[in-house]
Amino acid sequence: MSKLVIVGTVAFDAIETPFGKTDKILGGAATYISLAASQFNVDSAAVSIVGGDFPQEYLILLSDRGVDISGIEIVKEGKTFFWSGKYHNDMNTRDTLATELNVLADFHPVVPTEYRDAKIVMLGNLHPLVQLSVLEQMDHKPELVILDTMNFWMDCALDDLLNVIKKVDVITINDEEARQLTGEYSLVVAASKIQEMGPKYVVIKKGEHGALLFHKDKVFYAPALPLKEVFDPTGAGDTFAGGFAGYLAKSEDISFENMKNAVIYGSTLASFCVEKFGTERMVTLKSNEVHQRLQQFKSLTQFDIELT
Amino acid sequence: MSKLVIVGTVAFDAIETPFGKTDKILGGAATYISLAASQFNVDSAAVSIVGGDFPQEYLILLSDRGVDISGIEIVKEGKTFFWSGKYHNDMNTRDTLATELNVLADFHPVVPTEYRDAKIVMLGNLHPLVQLSVLEQMDHKPELVILDTMNFWMDCALDDLLNVIKKVDVITINDEEARQLTGEYSLVVAASKIQEMGPKYVVIKKGEHGALLFHKDKVFYAPALPLKEVFDPTGAGDTFAGGFAGYLAKSEDISFENMKNAVIYGSTLASFCVEKFGTERMVTLKSNEVHQRLQQFKSLTQFDIELT
Repeated sequence: MSKLVIVGTVAFDAIETPFGKTDKILGGAATYISLAASQFNVDSAAVSIVGGDFPQEYLILLSDRGVDISGIEIVKEGKTFFWSGKYHNDMNTRDTLATELNVLADFHPVVPTEYRDAKIVMLGNLHPLVQLSVLEQMDHKPELVILDTMNFWMDCALDDLLNVIKKVDVITINDEEARQLTGEYSLVVAASKIQEMGPKYVVIKKGEHGALLFHKDKVFYAPALPLKEVFDPTGAGDTFAGGFAGYLAKSEDISFENMKNAVIYGSTLASFCVEKFGTERMVTLKSNEVHQRLQQFKSLTQFDIELT
Repeated sequence: MSKLVIVGTVAFDAIETPFGKTDKILGGAATYISLAASQFNVDSAAVSIVGGDFPQEYLILLSDRGVDISGIEIVKEGKTFFWSGKYHNDMNTRDTLATELNVLADFHPVVPTEYRDAKIVMLGNLHPLVQLSVLEQMDHKPELVILDTMNFWMDCALDDLLNVIKKVDVITINDEEARQLTGEYSLVVAASKIQEMGPKYVVIKKGEHGALLFHKDKVFYAPALPLKEVFDPTGAGDTFAGGFAGYLAKSEDISFENMKNAVIYGSTLASFCVEKFGTERMVTLKSNEVHQRLQQFKSLTQFDIELT
């Protein structure tokens, strides 16, 4: 089993969907990634920052799942990063109602000493300079660095983003962001251009339409499980990334063939995440439920044409 | 091998895409369906209507591929149905520039006597009353009736459409049309409602995002092959339906498991159709090319997680 370093926000979210709304609940990229990765019982550490207003029970929730939380800085006099958003009826688009950076405005991540030799690093969505500073703290170049990012950084910190993209092995990005980053409409062409920027593996997330994994001239397509309803999409992308990273850390095999499995695990975990508000579903998720849904994924896509 | 009856338009199309434009070329649902089904060397008959302006060579093109054309009525003094459209840059939407019904306005399809015992009937997109009249000509209820339709008929002939939907076994429909027909956003819920309307099998086409096959509580997801470029999407849906129907006619197995294969064949043939203008690619398509692309589809979706 490889050590896994997870960097990202730990936050309060307030979410409104057509099904209801929440007060401030547990959120943040590092939270979702850690919860997903913890399904694989890997040796992981979350690196983040919270304020004095952040409940101890949320930290215990992570550490109870085997996530090392010594890298989560607590700024007693500060307030935790807060995001609030409202989803439209189609659940594919949302408006941000509030973004209060608070302690995140002055976040200088410190990777715990005993995790500086981690083989896998998962850089959750953050300012690219913050992501870069984490890589610089590692003892050696990790075996696999996975980067998640978003269009916001393309708009306001493109040079820094391109600099960190150059240094990673895998990028996870959604379809519109892949198009924005490359100026190409075809995802095949976009993925090829992104590979030229650095990452040997490109994962393009298409929400309800699944995810594509590209490597050289190879492609793999993991569908999203067709669901009766999506209750709350918040954290689905991070959960996908956490499942992807967690599976690779557990299996210690970073081949393209095994990354296919990692993408399927990521999709499977994301399909649970959207069933309830925030992290609610991920917190109660049992391994037999995951196993059962993997069966569903298998019957969803596997077919039996004999090719000679 | 089961006999296959194909009903639909045989037409002239004039197409404009970001890659160029065509004069009047061969088009029409029955044309695309027949060309796709002919890949399986099935015993098929096309039922349609054309005008005196329709080139003999186009009819020969079909009959050379084993399609019985005795059910294609030629109205010497009439003009062939003409459609003209222009695709937007994203290729997912298009404007209709012209629709000249011509001989189609007075189309009373006649199924050739020797095909009235066909086991499989593919009803291409047409007025639902015309589709219905074909079913009424069959000697017995066919083993499998497949219906393709579009939003136009939902807008202007909904009662007739619901009446024909009631009598078919499989419906192929795109995602937006499934939502319009049922008033449900979730495709899972929409597919379930459509099954209550009659068809035991529902195929929802999602263009570049692939296709879903629903039957009771079972789902199968066939991705579309990620392509560098879509040159011309015209006829992709009909080609999909023709591949689906042709494969089932050839294999004589209408189980859900085998329909998965039929959906994969449909997607595979559609991935060729969009590579060139109109029917151009389908006319030159060789079986070894199809075979090779099926391999690509297999490696695109097949994964190897051991589940106990």
